Amino acid sequence: MTAFTPADPDFADRVRISFERQSIMALIGAKLSRVEAGLVEIELPYRPALCQQHGFFHAGVTSTIADSAGGYAAFSLFPADASVLTTEFKINLLAPADGERLRALGRVLKPGRTLTICEVEVFALKHGKEKLCAKLLQSLMTMQGKPDAPLEAAPRG
Amino acid sequence: MTAFTPADPDFADRVRISFERQSIMALIGAKLSRVEAGLVEIELPYRPALCQQHGFFHAGVTSTIADSAGGYAAFSLFPADASVLTTEFKINLLAPADGERLRALGRVLKPGRTLTICEVEVFALKHGKEKLCAKLLQSLMTMQGKPDAPLEAAPRG
Amino acid sequence: MTAFTPADPDFADRVRISFERQSIMALIGAKLSRVEAGLVEIELPYRPALCQQHGFFHAGVTSTIADSAGGYAAFSLFPADASVLTTEFKINLLAPADGERLRALGRVLKPGRTLTICEVEVFALKHGKEKLCAKLLQSLMTMQGKPDAPLEAAPRG
Amino acid sequence: MTAFTPADPDFADRVRISFERQSIMALIGAKLSRVEAGLVEIELPYRPALCQQHGFFHAGVTSTIADSAGGYAAFSLFPADASVLTTEFKINLLAPADGERLRALGRVLKPGRTLTICEVEVFALKHGKEKLCAKLLQSLMTMQGKPDAPLEAAPRG
Repeated sequence: MTAFTPADPDFADRVRISFERQSIMALIGAKLSRVEAGLVEIELPYRPALCQQHGFFHAGVTSTIADSAGGYAAFSLFPADASVLTTEFKINLLAPADGERLRALGRVLKPGRTLTICEVEVFALKHGKEKLCAKLLQSLMTMQGKPDAPLEAAPRG
Repeated sequence: MTAFTPADPDFADRVRISFERQSIMALIGAKLSRVEAGLVEIELPYRPALCQQHGFFHAGVTSTIADSAGGYAAFSLFPADASVLTTEFKINLLAPADGERLRALGRVLKPGRTLTICEVEVFALKHGKEKLCAKLLQSLMTMQGKPDAPLEAAPRG
Repeated sequence: MTAFTPADPDFADRVRISFERQSIMALIGAKLSRVEAGLVEIELPYRPALCQQHGFFHAGVTSTIADSAGGYAAFSLFPADASVLTTEFKINLLAPADGERLRALGRVLKPGRTLTICEVEVFALKHGKEKLCAKLLQSLMTMQGKPDAPLEAAPRG
Repeated sequence: MTAFTPADPDFADRVRISFERQSIMALIGAKLSRVEAGLVEIELPYRPALCQQHGFFHAGVTSTIADSAGGYAAFSLFPADASVLTTEFKINLLAPADGERLRALGRVLKPGRTLTICEVEVFALKHGKEKLCAKLLQSLMTMQGKPDAPLEAAPRG
């Protein structure tokens, strides 16, 4: 695994502030648990309201935290005045997302000026044991010169 | 587009009952708006709580309704005693999911005994105009002999 | 399906010249059979040398013509001084690629300044009947200001 | 990385015999360079006939060896009377496939009775240095009770 040099020394604060702006994370109860240059982790405790028809986490919920973990892993390497946009991802659901908690670990596989490619692994914690339940491969675009709007000017406040 | 013959004449009821069991749909406010053999549509009105950092629908939310639209399109063709499992999907985010409402239209591309392949288009409605904002290609597995549990026996009460 | 306006009126010639430069197409025997703005078709007759272990076209061969069909569909809309690069694709193999001929039909789903998204369908012709055997969803990057090198200056003579 | 226990102790011979049956491998000049339980590597020397329009390996060629590397990694864990079928894959092309040789390293991420999920990395060797140029995520189906036909009974002689 290559070590990455972030373009912005304040990348961790920038990731946290942007994550706070993702209202869906509050709705589902996801927390940012780790921020490094090119690596971001998000955790999500189980709630009955997050499920598909068999009582497991819905694949869309797994995708939601995986997409943000990979997106912010990419974003952590961006210049301070850029924002991030997912252009596509592919997810393989390897096992039912069954457990007390999900953990999505996103890592930059290949940084780039325009496109950054990330990999994300999602683990389900059950009875104290973690199991890989999903793997995601994702493309992110750097939106140069378009920083996230300040919190007070959110477009739909 | 091929017309499909459902294995179970009561497929539409079966889809609606299973959809009701997906608690995440209630959390985000998604509604089943159309159920045909091999075709399912889900609609989702905008809410500030469903967003990413720029105030658009989060890609994970778009994925959530797209995954269920495709999943139930497949499920509509299954025998009465089978349930459905997404094994993987790939989503291309073609435009920001910006609007008053999303509409995910899932269609079976290729039915199969073990694997069914679906395509899903997601449209964003804004100022009365719909725009294609995402396209999904998805694999679903038939879980033979494993019907959804009855509602009163949900595994996580 | 939207009609597209090509940036370069000579797009069809540009596609044909670039296709000629793809040496792999000659090796496998693929032919460009249709070039329109945002739509390109490639055909490939069966040969025993193109197969996987069961005597069907190898998935990599199917991918090869599908990737070029989508790539040139995108390229057909590009300005005259740009070249094209596939950044990713996903292919679902819906049925064995079994037949006398494959036909890959690539279409632009969403053109863009930086990224263009295409869909490709591959059909296998057997005993006079065509069957959809693969579906591909693909991202292409516009390499602005980097036209294909002229044929006489190919980098690897 | 988990160690896998192959169902068939003669898996390496079975992989080599099946690989020999893939005629496309001979056409492009690919060689099986490593076979372990759940891990298969394929190498491909550069030839001018394998290229896209800029003289790099065509993405379809990269996909061809990657698909077989992952496919045989899965196949290595299958019972002796089963064959393998790729149902889908997704490839991210991280850098131009530019070099004297490609190396595709396929690994089982999650074995399963019906579906096995593999990851494949493709490296390009140039001037003695290897660079990751593609990453693939792939689903393989076990065809139970359908061994590869013996070589003398190939369906298309």
